[in-house]
Amino acid sequence: MRADVHRFSLSDPGDVSGLRAAIEAGRIDPATIVAVIGKTPGNGLVNDYTRGYLTLSLALLIGETTGETPDAVRARVPFVFSGGTEGVLSPHYAVFTAVPSDEQPNGGKALGVGVAFTAPFEPADIGRQSQIDMTAAAVREAMEKAGIDDPADVHFVQIKGPAFTLAEIAEGAAAGKPAATDNPGKLMGFGRAASAFGVAKALGEVGAEQAVEANLFRDMSVFSSVASASAGVEVKCNEVIVIGMSDKWSGPLAIAHSPLADALDVDGMQAVAGALGFPSGSQIPADEAGRIRAGFVKCEAARDGLIRGRPHTMLNDGDIDQQRHIRAAVGAIAASVLNDTALFVSGGAEHQGPDGGGMIALICERA
Amino acid sequence: MRADVHRFSLSDPGDVSGLRAAIEAGRIDPATIVAVIGKTPGNGLVNDYTRGYLTLSLALLIGETTGETPDAVRARVPFVFSGGTEGVLSPHYAVFTAVPSDEQPNGGKALGVGVAFTAPFEPADIGRQSQIDMTAAAVREAMEKAGIDDPADVHFVQIKGPAFTLAEIAEGAAAGKPAATDNPGKLMGFGRAASAFGVAKALGEVGAEQAVEANLFRDMSVFSSVASASAGVEVKCNEVIVIGMSDKWSGPLAIAHSPLADALDVDGMQAVAGALGFPSGSQIPADEAGRIRAGFVKCEAARDGLIRGRPHTMLNDGDIDQQRHIRAAVGAIAASVLNDTALFVSGGAEHQGPDGGGMIALICERA
Amino acid sequence: MRADVHRFSLSDPGDVSGLRAAIEAGRIDPATIVAVIGKTPGNGLVNDYTRGYLTLSLALLIGETTGETPDAVRARVPFVFSGGTEGVLSPHYAVFTAVPSDEQPNGGKALGVGVAFTAPFEPADIGRQSQIDMTAAAVREAMEKAGIDDPADVHFVQIKGPAFTLAEIAEGAAAGKPAATDNPGKLMGFGRAASAFGVAKALGEVGAEQAVEANLFRDMSVFSSVASASAGVEVKCNEVIVIGMSDKWSGPLAIAHSPLADALDVDGMQAVAGALGFPSGSQIPADEAGRIRAGFVKCEAARDGLIRGRPHTMLNDGDIDQQRHIRAAVGAIAASVLNDTALFVSGGAEHQGPDGGGMIALICERA
Amino acid sequence: MRADVHRFSLSDPGDVSGLRAAIEAGRIDPATIVAVIGKTPGNGLVNDYTRGYLTLSLALLIGETTGETPDAVRARVPFVFSGGTEGVLSPHYAVFTAVPSDEQPNGGKALGVGVAFTAPFEPADIGRQSQIDMTAAAVREAMEKAGIDDPADVHFVQIKGPAFTLAEIAEGAAAGKPAATDNPGKLMGFGRAASAFGVAKALGEVGAEQAVEANLFRDMSVFSSVASASAGVEVKCNEVIVIGMSDKWSGPLAIAHSPLADALDVDGMQAVAGALGFPSGSQIPADEAGRIRAGFVKCEAARDGLIRGRPHTMLNDGDIDQQRHIRAAVGAIAASVLNDTALFVSGGAEHQGPDGGGMIALICERA
Repeated sequence: MRADVHRFSLSDPGDVSGLRAAIEAGRIDPATIVAVIGKTPGNGLVNDYTRGYLTLSLALLIGETTGETPDAVRARVPFVFSGGTEGVLSPHYAVFTAVPSDEQPNGGKALGVGVAFTAPFEPADIGRQSQIDMTAAAVREAMEKAGIDDPADVHFVQIKGPAFTLAEIAEGAAAGKPAATDNPGKLMGFGRAASAFGVAKALGEVGAEQAVEANLFRDMSVFSSVASASAGVEVKCNEVIVIGMSDKWSGPLAIAHSPLADALDVDGMQAVAGALGFPSGSQIPADEAGRIRAGFVKCEAARDGLIRGRPHTMLNDGDIDQQRHIRAAVGAIAASVLNDTALFVSGGAEHQGPDGGGMIALICERA
Repeated sequence: MRADVHRFSLSDPGDVSGLRAAIEAGRIDPATIVAVIGKTPGNGLVNDYTRGYLTLSLALLIGETTGETPDAVRARVPFVFSGGTEGVLSPHYAVFTAVPSDEQPNGGKALGVGVAFTAPFEPADIGRQSQIDMTAAAVREAMEKAGIDDPADVHFVQIKGPAFTLAEIAEGAAAGKPAATDNPGKLMGFGRAASAFGVAKALGEVGAEQAVEANLFRDMSVFSSVASASAGVEVKCNEVIVIGMSDKWSGPLAIAHSPLADALDVDGMQAVAGALGFPSGSQIPADEAGRIRAGFVKCEAARDGLIRGRPHTMLNDGDIDQQRHIRAAVGAIAASVLNDTALFVSGGAEHQGPDGGGMIALICERA
Repeated sequence: MRADVHRFSLSDPGDVSGLRAAIEAGRIDPATIVAVIGKTPGNGLVNDYTRGYLTLSLALLIGETTGETPDAVRARVPFVFSGGTEGVLSPHYAVFTAVPSDEQPNGGKALGVGVAFTAPFEPADIGRQSQIDMTAAAVREAMEKAGIDDPADVHFVQIKGPAFTLAEIAEGAAAGKPAATDNPGKLMGFGRAASAFGVAKALGEVGAEQAVEANLFRDMSVFSSVASASAGVEVKCNEVIVIGMSDKWSGPLAIAHSPLADALDVDGMQAVAGALGFPSGSQIPADEAGRIRAGFVKCEAARDGLIRGRPHTMLNDGDIDQQRHIRAAVGAIAASVLNDTALFVSGGAEHQGPDGGGMIALICERA
Repeated sequence: MRADVHRFSLSDPGDVSGLRAAIEAGRIDPATIVAVIGKTPGNGLVNDYTRGYLTLSLALLIGETTGETPDAVRARVPFVFSGGTEGVLSPHYAVFTAVPSDEQPNGGKALGVGVAFTAPFEPADIGRQSQIDMTAAAVREAMEKAGIDDPADVHFVQIKGPAFTLAEIAEGAAAGKPAATDNPGKLMGFGRAASAFGVAKALGEVGAEQAVEANLFRDMSVFSSVASASAGVEVKCNEVIVIGMSDKWSGPLAIAHSPLADALDVDGMQAVAGALGFPSGSQIPADEAGRIRAGFVKCEAARDGLIRGRPHTMLNDGDIDQQRHIRAAVGAIAASVLNDTALFVSGGAEHQGPDGGGMIALICERA
């Protein structure tokens, strides 16, 4: 197999002309699309409908060209969109394809991708042990599909799980199944945290005895360095995409990752660039930056209100949500280091990387 | 004379305990305070009252200790506050003092500061030739007070000019004196642009024939690389602070500056750090960063909607003002390079640095 | 012919289950749908994609059941959605159907509907005489289709025109076709204003010599009391829906309208309720309110910053757009009078009703 | 004694020219000021500094004219400001004075005012039984000062309690005194709820066994119909203002109140107007409205997401806080009924009036 990643600019969540042109030109066979990950221009919070809009638009386009119904496309292809392109970030979507290849793996490893889905969740399932364990099982299933045996070869696990509106949460409570919180935004956080625990458990980043519901939001030392979890009202189960290096795949692409210790962790970003053969320096030169195929960053506003000892105001702001602040900030730093603004930068990094920090993963063509 | 810069964290615009403690401990003689520049935690737009609140609080504190009335303090000391500490930025204020010194200038130059005020402006004056010319005259006056003869020794000119509410603009129009625009936020932009023209004219950065009203927002090649202009409802005239290097001053402090070509111009930021003797590398190490006394950045969302060829969404956003977006982004990049989040990062860089970019200036102790 | 109006709650812009159930139950024949007007839960500004999302979702659903392509549905049925359900307002969409009827008109008049479309507009066309005149022609065409001869029988003309992003405006300017303004939000206002002029001209509410481009935003006494214009990036031409009373239609529905003098014009709202036979009183009783089929309100923040002599803050607010403020306020007043929160309340009432006010129209079953 | 209420428009939280002019003209003796209640143009959330700014500005002005220090003024006069003048609301402050009077009470009752303060609270005290009980004691003390014996004569109890920033909450937790929640905005809600319990307990609106910590946010049937509680970082204790009718006071002013069943409860508003002799009808005529001296409204977004059976979106909105939505909506309805926009409309009505509703109180000159 051979994986490829095609990144398209997004002028409007209903505008899928980029992928359409690529399909029409024969550059992409829609039947080979295995996942799509992107950033849409919404607020990234509960009432962000840009994610669902793009999902529908892409499912329609792919179905049109493959003959599948949109629902069949969605059942096969995870569409993971995070809202919020604050600051310099550029809306885009990255289309992952997996094509059978005659190419002999050269003994080395190449980018491999695998996907899996959990069963649907209700509000009461979010942030519970069952979500942790079902996610872990899905990660292992996706690893197997990706042809990755060694957890150390997994560099990025993207999960998109459900968000619920107040009405849905209330309905569940009325039916005797109360959610972990009745705050829709907070429940999204619970879902991301439990998903991260699932990844960490599946990959052995932490012991099974640590990846337990009771540690959610309590033991911040329990985290995954490769997990990136989002939540949105447009999905009903956890959709899991495992990306890593596998000797069962061929092709020119590679991926590397690093945890980010805090919002200013330029070293972590450069470590990833260095691991992929980019020249050292404070910014990847424009010609080299052309090798980048996709970048993923998780980040969060430090819970203690401090960054390197100085106060920040993100957690006290009634006008702009903390996630929008931190995406703007860490997204800009990553864009300045990578010389690329079409990055998937997502807030809500609960247990995804160190507390107050997050993680970064980068896919590029080999030098 | 000897200039010093003291930076204090700001937990609330009414909390001036930092300066109070320094005065009480004898570290600062309030009579020597010549200017205060800072970032407050408001939105930085027309209805940001955190600037006025801090101004009142500081004027009261200084007056209490010098015996001046708050009004007398405000007539003597420019208080220039920019609202908006988006992302990682930390609210703070930098107090500039000028103390008579026996120290012999060592033949070299040291940080010098001079201030001046224009006459008051009405809404109809903003963005007009008179504002340009009166600002230029005030810059020259402040240079003289700063003991700077060569315009090349001027590295930062901070201007705070008036903003007007809709009611005030309408009142002026009714009185037969229409403003350049009846949009309060836009009029702030006109004021910043005209102020920048005044600086560029005074310093010879552009010819006098270029620094004309007709070029405002038309010829974006006309700009100043050292001007930083803000506007707020709490001032009525242009308050001008000139900071540079002078052989008439002594002390350990130095300043350097650079234009910023665009929002990702890490090179410009590093040029300033390099000019001040910081080690090269993508981030100033923590121990070296302790030498920083104050940093100033102007930035703006590129008017053509593009950053290095990719679209940004800052100009189409109905929820978050473009200035809040760009401050979060460029502020974070500067913080990551300088390893310091207590930076004065201000949006609205019309004619302050290249179009779509801005400028940066840094004050530090010599290595 | 017989017109009907079916109103559905909208839990998500992609959720069209309400209409789907009505079609499946045979309550609505999708081939008879002639227009859809609704409120979506976005911000109602340039970057509101909830309108496009609902449009796509409904076009797909209708096309699925009629066999039309989504594009064919959109070419036939105007979908007019206004974003922003601030405060008590409830997201919903009202589906208008026109069904051939054997019923003999009883000599009286009943609700009639007609629609028409202009040719597509480019950014440079917005707010120009051509937009005014093409809109006027489309209004006359729609009146004819609605079987309305007397302009006094027209009670509501809804227009949805295009909005353009900064990139599109810049592209037009680069091609030598500059728009009336390069501010996307302001250009939406120009389009609404020119559309209102077109309505006023077609219906003779003002003289043709008054409905001229030069009077846009200058002579606020030129307005239409039945026009309601919105703008959004999801349409490319002016879509015109004329609703009124016609002796060529039968059925139980009626419509009335009133201008609103200002944001607190409860009398205007009650006049409409009275004209439709609702009992007088400060709030329509719940059982009577069940007769309401759809309500439409246009409103705006008074440009002079005053409401009945007291200042408001809507025009100086950097955090919440003035349209969101005024929709929340006037929408709540209308909801309190009508005892119904599923109202189409739209800001940006430039030349739609008196300056600082707006208009209201109400459709209900006859008592 | 004789109470008076003077209402001033507020163009800026630092502009106290209204009161200054009244003092200079001899219309108000600053020594007789017993309380100030007002609406400032901030966001009304944790990072709203307009409340503290106005407090400082007024304390300075009053102290200047009475010879008191600002701190002495603040220890004597409660300043209760609620941020957020969304929609049609107009920023203002109402100054309450109590003047010794020779006038013989005519056997009837007149407006009386009394104030009291609790001891200071720490984050850990908020939302606890001690806050409930200390507030109840302060209410009884203020009643006594107001010369009101019968709880039925109390029509409005305004309480302003402390809000804490994340840093303060974290500091408390680190010191072994965890707050009820580590979310600053949510803690404000706890404080308002406990304060309302204190009022209800003091006035016998509920039994003492109901006004217990365990019922906070659990038993929504426990509420006060006269309590209005706000929270802000600018105060450290609960400041309590009791307003009612007393036969120990004289003068032309009267007060009445009503609970509000929900956001559209026009009947409740009209009941208050009727009780004060305003003519029935949907809006008080302008000449009659001139009798209004101050109006107070508490309101909240219904927790079940429904208003009269239809969904609202206030609780799912990531861009505008629910309190800003509901203030805009209910404030506009009250303004339309009372024909007055300078109303104190405050969100966060936890246990202040029925769940999903709130309360209204109105002070006016007798007809």
